[in-house]
Amino acid sequence: MIIRERPVGPRLFFVLRGSILNRILVPLTGTTLTAVVVTLLHGELLHHKINVTTIPFSLIGIALAIFLGFRNSAAYDRYWEARKLWGDVVHRSRSLARQARCLVRGAVPAQAALGLGDLRVRIVWRTVALAHALRHHLRDTRPELELARYLTPAEWAGLQAASNGPEYLLQRLGDDLRRGLDDGAIDSIVACEMDQTLAAFAAAFAGCERIKGTPIPFAYSLLLHRTAYLYCFLLPFGLIDALGFVTPLVVAFVAYTFFGLDAVGDEIENPFGHGYNDLPLDAICRTIEIGLRESLGDEHIPPPLQPVDFWLR
Amino acid sequence: MIIRERPVGPRLFFVLRGSILNRILVPLTGTTLTAVVVTLLHGELLHHKINVTTIPFSLIGIALAIFLGFRNSAAYDRYWEARKLWGDVVHRSRSLARQARCLVRGAVPAQAALGLGDLRVRIVWRTVALAHALRHHLRDTRPELELARYLTPAEWAGLQAASNGPEYLLQRLGDDLRRGLDDGAIDSIVACEMDQTLAAFAAAFAGCERIKGTPIPFAYSLLLHRTAYLYCFLLPFGLIDALGFVTPLVVAFVAYTFFGLDAVGDEIENPFGHGYNDLPLDAICRTIEIGLRESLGDEHIPPPLQPVDFWLR
Amino acid sequence: MIIRERPVGPRLFFVLRGSILNRILVPLTGTTLTAVVVTLLHGELLHHKINVTTIPFSLIGIALAIFLGFRNSAAYDRYWEARKLWGDVVHRSRSLARQARCLVRGAVPAQAALGLGDLRVRIVWRTVALAHALRHHLRDTRPELELARYLTPAEWAGLQAASNGPEYLLQRLGDDLRRGLDDGAIDSIVACEMDQTLAAFAAAFAGCERIKGTPIPFAYSLLLHRTAYLYCFLLPFGLIDALGFVTPLVVAFVAYTFFGLDAVGDEIENPFGHGYNDLPLDAICRTIEIGLRESLGDEHIPPPLQPVDFWLR
Amino acid sequence: MIIRERPVGPRLFFVLRGSILNRILVPLTGTTLTAVVVTLLHGELLHHKINVTTIPFSLIGIALAIFLGFRNSAAYDRYWEARKLWGDVVHRSRSLARQARCLVRGAVPAQAALGLGDLRVRIVWRTVALAHALRHHLRDTRPELELARYLTPAEWAGLQAASNGPEYLLQRLGDDLRRGLDDGAIDSIVACEMDQTLAAFAAAFAGCERIKGTPIPFAYSLLLHRTAYLYCFLLPFGLIDALGFVTPLVVAFVAYTFFGLDAVGDEIENPFGHGYNDLPLDAICRTIEIGLRESLGDEHIPPPLQPVDFWLR
Amino acid sequence: MIIRERPVGPRLFFVLRGSILNRILVPLTGTTLTAVVVTLLHGELLHHKINVTTIPFSLIGIALAIFLGFRNSAAYDRYWEARKLWGDVVHRSRSLARQARCLVRGAVPAQAALGLGDLRVRIVWRTVALAHALRHHLRDTRPELELARYLTPAEWAGLQAASNGPEYLLQRLGDDLRRGLDDGAIDSIVACEMDQTLAAFAAAFAGCERIKGTPIPFAYSLLLHRTAYLYCFLLPFGLIDALGFVTPLVVAFVAYTFFGLDAVGDEIENPFGHGYNDLPLDAICRTIEIGLRESLGDEHIPPPLQPVDFWLR
Repeated sequence: MIIRERPVGPRLFFVLRGSILNRILVPLTGTTLTAVVVTLLHGELLHHKINVTTIPFSLIGIALAIFLGFRNSAAYDRYWEARKLWGDVVHRSRSLARQARCLVRGAVPAQAALGLGDLRVRIVWRTVALAHALRHHLRDTRPELELARYLTPAEWAGLQAASNGPEYLLQRLGDDLRRGLDDGAIDSIVACEMDQTLAAFAAAFAGCERIKGTPIPFAYSLLLHRTAYLYCFLLPFGLIDALGFVTPLVVAFVAYTFFGLDAVGDEIENPFGHGYNDLPLDAICRTIEIGLRESLGDEHIPPPLQPVDFWLR
Repeated sequence: MIIRERPVGPRLFFVLRGSILNRILVPLTGTTLTAVVVTLLHGELLHHKINVTTIPFSLIGIALAIFLGFRNSAAYDRYWEARKLWGDVVHRSRSLARQARCLVRGAVPAQAALGLGDLRVRIVWRTVALAHALRHHLRDTRPELELARYLTPAEWAGLQAASNGPEYLLQRLGDDLRRGLDDGAIDSIVACEMDQTLAAFAAAFAGCERIKGTPIPFAYSLLLHRTAYLYCFLLPFGLIDALGFVTPLVVAFVAYTFFGLDAVGDEIENPFGHGYNDLPLDAICRTIEIGLRESLGDEHIPPPLQPVDFWLR
Repeated sequence: MIIRERPVGPRLFFVLRGSILNRILVPLTGTTLTAVVVTLLHGELLHHKINVTTIPFSLIGIALAIFLGFRNSAAYDRYWEARKLWGDVVHRSRSLARQARCLVRGAVPAQAALGLGDLRVRIVWRTVALAHALRHHLRDTRPELELARYLTPAEWAGLQAASNGPEYLLQRLGDDLRRGLDDGAIDSIVACEMDQTLAAFAAAFAGCERIKGTPIPFAYSLLLHRTAYLYCFLLPFGLIDALGFVTPLVVAFVAYTFFGLDAVGDEIENPFGHGYNDLPLDAICRTIEIGLRESLGDEHIPPPLQPVDFWLR
Repeated sequence: MIIRERPVGPRLFFVLRGSILNRILVPLTGTTLTAVVVTLLHGELLHHKINVTTIPFSLIGIALAIFLGFRNSAAYDRYWEARKLWGDVVHRSRSLARQARCLVRGAVPAQAALGLGDLRVRIVWRTVALAHALRHHLRDTRPELELARYLTPAEWAGLQAASNGPEYLLQRLGDDLRRGLDDGAIDSIVACEMDQTLAAFAAAFAGCERIKGTPIPFAYSLLLHRTAYLYCFLLPFGLIDALGFVTPLVVAFVAYTFFGLDAVGDEIENPFGHGYNDLPLDAICRTIEIGLRESLGDEHIPPPLQPVDFWLR
Repeated sequence: MIIRERPVGPRLFFVLRGSILNRILVPLTGTTLTAVVVTLLHGELLHHKINVTTIPFSLIGIALAIFLGFRNSAAYDRYWEARKLWGDVVHRSRSLARQARCLVRGAVPAQAALGLGDLRVRIVWRTVALAHALRHHLRDTRPELELARYLTPAEWAGLQAASNGPEYLLQRLGDDLRRGLDDGAIDSIVACEMDQTLAAFAAAFAGCERIKGTPIPFAYSLLLHRTAYLYCFLLPFGLIDALGFVTPLVVAFVAYTFFGLDAVGDEIENPFGHGYNDLPLDAICRTIEIGLRESLGDEHIPPPLQPVDFWLR
C-alpha cells in the first residue's frame, strides 16, 4: 500500500511508484502509434478513406464509461471488503486474547513468562501465529521459522504439513477449549463464548479465500477489455478529419484514461499480493503481534512496520 | 468459473471459452445484416428516405447504458451474494465440525476410525454430505452414490426420498443434538451453540434457494431487451447518412457492446448452473470435504479440483 | 412473479403478461398523438414556429436518466429486500420447527400424530399458520379457513379478532415457551434460544410492514413523473425540424423507454400485491408448509405450487 | 409522509402537498426572470455580446447530474435507514414485551389489570413510553402528559428532568432487570436475553441521533448548490442564440429539474421533522402502543392514525 | 463539522468556512491563467494553431464525471461508516454502563459517590475514559490530564505508556470481569454478556483504525487527479475557437466543478482530523461523558458542546 500525501502541481505527473502507467504502457504506445500512422495516411487505407466520425464513440463512450465505473466499484468493494476482513482478524485476535486472559481460570494472572504450558498463554501465542499463517496462506508463501516460537514443536510440524494452515491452527484452538473444559478451567458458557470467536475467525478466513479464489466473472472482464481496446484503436479513424495532426495527442489522452481505469480495477481486484496497491498484510500482522505480546507483558517487542519509500508492505 | 490471466494483445480477441459471443451471435448477425441491407438501399424503404439522424440514439443511449449498468450491478450482486452464501457454507461446515469434535464429550478424541457410531464423527460426516446435497439441490441433480459413505443406510434412503435434501440432513443433525442431550454428551448450552450453527446453515440454504428461484423481475428484463433490440435494429437508419459504407461496421461494434452487456447479465444472474461463468460448486464442496476429513485424521483424502482448460467446475 | 425463459427474436415483442405496456398505454398514446399533431402542423402553434431544438433534451435527458436509474435501484432494492425477508421467514420457520422437535424434551419423538396437545407439534403447526397469517396481513386478505386446522379453536378465534395476525400468533408462541418453562420441558437456555428465533420473526414482520407502509417519498415520484411527462410531451417540438415525418416514431420510442422505466419502478416498489411482478407469497408459504409437515412425518402433503401460464402467485 | 396513488394525467401537475415546488419557487423565478431579461437584450451586456454556447453546459451538465444523483442516493439512504431504525424500534418493543410477559416468572399470567406494581406490566408500559420518548427526543418536543399513565410518578418526573429521555427510560428498564434478578423472577440467562434487547434499543436510538445530528458534509452541499445555481443562471447566455424567444421556457424547465432534484435531497435528508415528506412517527408510535396494549389485554385501545388529506404524521 | 442551514441567494457564494475553495485555489488560478494566455494567443503556440475542438472533452468528460462520482461515493461511505462506528461507541458505552450498574451484584445501588473502589463505578468511569482515549488515538494527540480522574493512578500511568490506549483500557475492563468472577459479583453468563460488549468495542476501534490507516488506493487518486488536471489545462485549446474571449470564464467554471468534486473527496476521506468537515469527536465524547455521569447520579456535569461559528469540533 502506498501511503503518501497527494503530490501537488507538476510533481503529480512524475510519480511512478503506485501508478498504473507501467501496466498500460504497451497498449498505450500501440494505440498512439496507430494514431500516428492514421494521421500520416490522413485516415486512408489502401486509398479508401475510412470515415467513422465521432458519432459511434459518443454512443459507445457512455456505455463504456458506466461499465468501467461499475467494474471499478466492484473491484474497490473487493479491496475494501478484504481490508474489513483483516480488520476482523485484528479485533477478533484481541478479543480472543482478552477472553483467554480473563475468562479462563488460572492460579496466577496470565503472563508471557508462564510459557506455552499455560492454557491461556498458549491460546494467545497461537492467535499470533494464526494471523501470520493466514497471511502466508493468502500470499502462497511458506510459514516462516519465526512462527515456530509461538507453537509447540508438534504443532509447528503439523502446521507445515497442513493443506490449510489457518484452519489447522483453529482446530488446535478448539482442542484447547476441550482441554479447558476437561480441566475445569472453563465452563460450557465460556467455551461457547470463545467458540463464537473462533467461528468469527473462520468466517473471516473463508471471506479472504473467497476474494482470492473468485475473480470478477471472466465474461465481464473480457467484454470490457475488448470494448476498450476496440474503442481506442478505432478512435483515430473517428478523429482524423476533425482534429488533423492533434489526433495522436488526443488519442493518447483518451486511451490513458480508459486503459488506466481498466488497469486500476485489475490492480486492486485481488488485494492479497505483494504489489504497491495491495494490502499491507505484513504491517497488520505486526500490529496484532505487538498488541497481543503487550497484553501478556512480553519483552523485546518489535516496533511497528513503517513505509519504505511510501510503500507499506 | 473461468480462471486465467487476462489475455493481452491480439489474443484478447480469440478467446471463446467464457466469452458471451456465442450467446449474442444470432442478434448480432441479424443487426449487422440489417445494416448491410440499409447501406445498400441508402436508407430508403419503398423509395422513401427514412432519415432518423443520430439524435434519438443519443437521447436513448444514455438511458439504455445506465439501465444496462443497473441490471449488470443487480446480476453481479446476485452472483457475489451466491458466492458469499457458499463461503458461509464453507466456514459453517468447519465450525460445526470443530464444535462436534471439541464441545461434545467423548471417551477418546474424535477420529474417523470411530465410524458413524460415534456422535461426533457422525455429525462431521453428515456435514460433508450436507454441502454435497446442497450442491445437487441447487443444480437439480440427484445426490450421487459417493454421498452414501457419509450417511447411515437409513439416512441415505431418506435423503433420496426427501423433497428437500439439505433440509432433511439438517433435521437429522437436529435429531443428533437431541440424542446428545439425552446421553449427556452435551448440555443445553452446547446444544444451543450448535443449534445456532444449524440455523446459520438454514439461512445460507434459504439464501441460495432465493437466488435460484427469484430472477430479476421479468418486466425489467423485457423492457431492457426490447429497448436494446429496437435501438440496434433502428441504428443503421440513423447512421447511414453520416457514415455511408462504414455503417455496418459501426452498427456491429455498437450492437456487440450493448448485446454483450445485456447477455453477460443473463449469464451470471443465476450462478448455480453448469456453465463457464457459474460458481465452481464441485470445487468448493471438495474443499469442504478435504478440510473435514483432515480434521478427523482420515486417510485417502482426494486432492483439490483443478481447472481444466481454465475451467473450474 | 413471471417465470419464463427470455423470449428470443420477434417473439420478444409479443409478450404481454408481465410487460408494463398496459400501464403506460395512455400516456404513450397521448405523447405519440401529440407528436403526430405537431408533425402535421410543422411545429407551428397559432402560426408561430416553436423551435426548441434538441439542446434542452440533451441537457435534461442525462439528469432524467440518472434519476430514473436511481429510482429503479431504490425500487428493486425494496423488491429484493422483501424477498430476503421472506427468505428469513422460510429459514426461521424451519429452524423454529427444528428447535421445537429437538430441543424441547418429550417422552416420544415429535410426530404429527401427537396432535395439538403436544407442545412440540403445537409450535410447529403454529409456525405454519404464522407464515400464512403474514401473507394475508401483507395482502390485506382475511386468513382462510385452511389455517384453522393448524390452530386450536380459541386461537383461531383470537386470530380473526386480532388487529395484527402474525403478531398475535407470535405472542401465542411466547406463551408456549412459558408453559414449557413451567412444565420443565425446556430450561431457560433453550427458552432464550427459541425466543431469539421469535425475535427474528418479529424483525422480518416489521421489515415487511415497513416496505408495505413506507413508499419512496412522494416528492421524488412526483418530481420524476412531472419531468418525464414534460420531457416527452415537449420532445416533438425539439425534433420536428431535424426529423420531419419520422418524429412521431422517434417520440414513441423515447417515450416508451422513459415511461417504461418509470412504470417498472412503480410496478415493483410494493412487491406484496397480486400482480404479475409481485412476489409469489402463495408458493413460498406452500414451501414452508410442505417442509414443516414433512419434518413431523405428516401425510397428505400438498404438492408445491407451479406457475400457470408462466405466472407463479 | 404523503400516502396517495400517483396522480395521472393533467392532475399530476396540480398537486402541491408533498411537492417541493414551494421550496424552489424563489430561485426558479429568479432564473426565469434572468432568462427573460437576457432574451430581451439578445444576450448583450453593455453592447457586448456574451456568447457562451451550449458547450460548457454539456460538459458540466453530466458532472452536475451525477453529483445530484449521488447526493439524492445519500439522502434517500438516510431516509430509509431512519425508517429501518424505527422498524427496529417497532419489533424490539414487541419482543421486549413478549419477553417480559413470557420469560419473567409470575404467579398469574401478565395482564394490564395488574398495574405498574407488576414487574412484567411495568416493563411493557415503560416500553410504550420509550417509543414516544424517542419520538419527542428526535423532534425536539416535550413528552406529553399522555406518557404519564405509562410511568410511575417518580419516573415521569425523572423523564422530564433527563437530558436524554429515551436513555433515561432504558436505564430504568435495566434497574428492573436488577430487581427481577434480586426477586428471583428472572435468572441470569433471561436477564442477559432481555439486556440484549435493551442494547438493541440503544443501538436504534444512537442510529437516529446520528442521522439527526450529522448532516451530509457541508462542503458537499455547498459545492452542489453553487454549481447548480451558476449553471442555471448562466444557461440563458448559452441558449439565446440557438433558441431565441423560447429561451425562458427552456431555462425554467432545466432549472425546475435541477433545483428540484437538489431540493428533494434537502427535504428528506433529515426525516425526523414535521414536514410532508418526513417519517410518520406519530403513526408508528401509535402502532406500537396498540400492539403492546393488546398483548396485555388492555381496554379502550385507540385506533390507528389515518392520513389526513393524504398526510400521515 | 459545519452545522448550519443552507445559505440562500447571493450569500451562498460568500461562505468560506467549510468550503473547499481554499484547497483548490492554486490549480484553479493556474488553469484560469492558462486559459487567459491561450485566449490572448488565439490558441496558437509558436505560430501553430492547436485545434483540439471539444470532441475529446466530451468523450473523456463522462468518464471523468463517473469516476469522480465513484470516488466521492467511496469517500462519503468512509465518512459515514466512521460516524456509524462512533455511533457504536456511543451506544456500547451506554450499554456497558447499564450492564455494570444492573447485572453486577452489589450491596447498594451503584452511585458515583462509591468511587473507583466499587467494581461497577470503576467500569463506568473507565468506559468514559475509553471514548476519550479512542478520540486521542485517532487524532494522534496525547490523552489529557482530565482523563486521570476516571482512572486509578496505576491505570493512568499505564495508559500513557501503552502503544494503543483504547486497547489498553479494554484489557483493564477484561481484568475487572475476571475480578468480578472471582468475587462472585458476576457469574459466567453475565461475564460473557459483558465480554460481548467489550468485543463490540474492539470491533468499533478496529474499524476506526482501518479507516484511518487505509486510504483509497493511491493508484485511483493518482489517475483521477492526473486526468482532472490534464482535462482542465487542455480545455482552453478546445474552447478557444468556439467561445473566444469568454473562454477563461468557462474554463474557470468547469475547473471549479471538477477540482471541487475532487477536493471534497479528499476532504472527507479521512474524517478523524481537526478540519471543518471532520467528525465532531469532542462533542460526541462529551455526549457519552454526560450520559454516563448522569446514570451514576454524578454532579457538576459539563454541558454539551455547542458549535462555534457553525463549527462543532
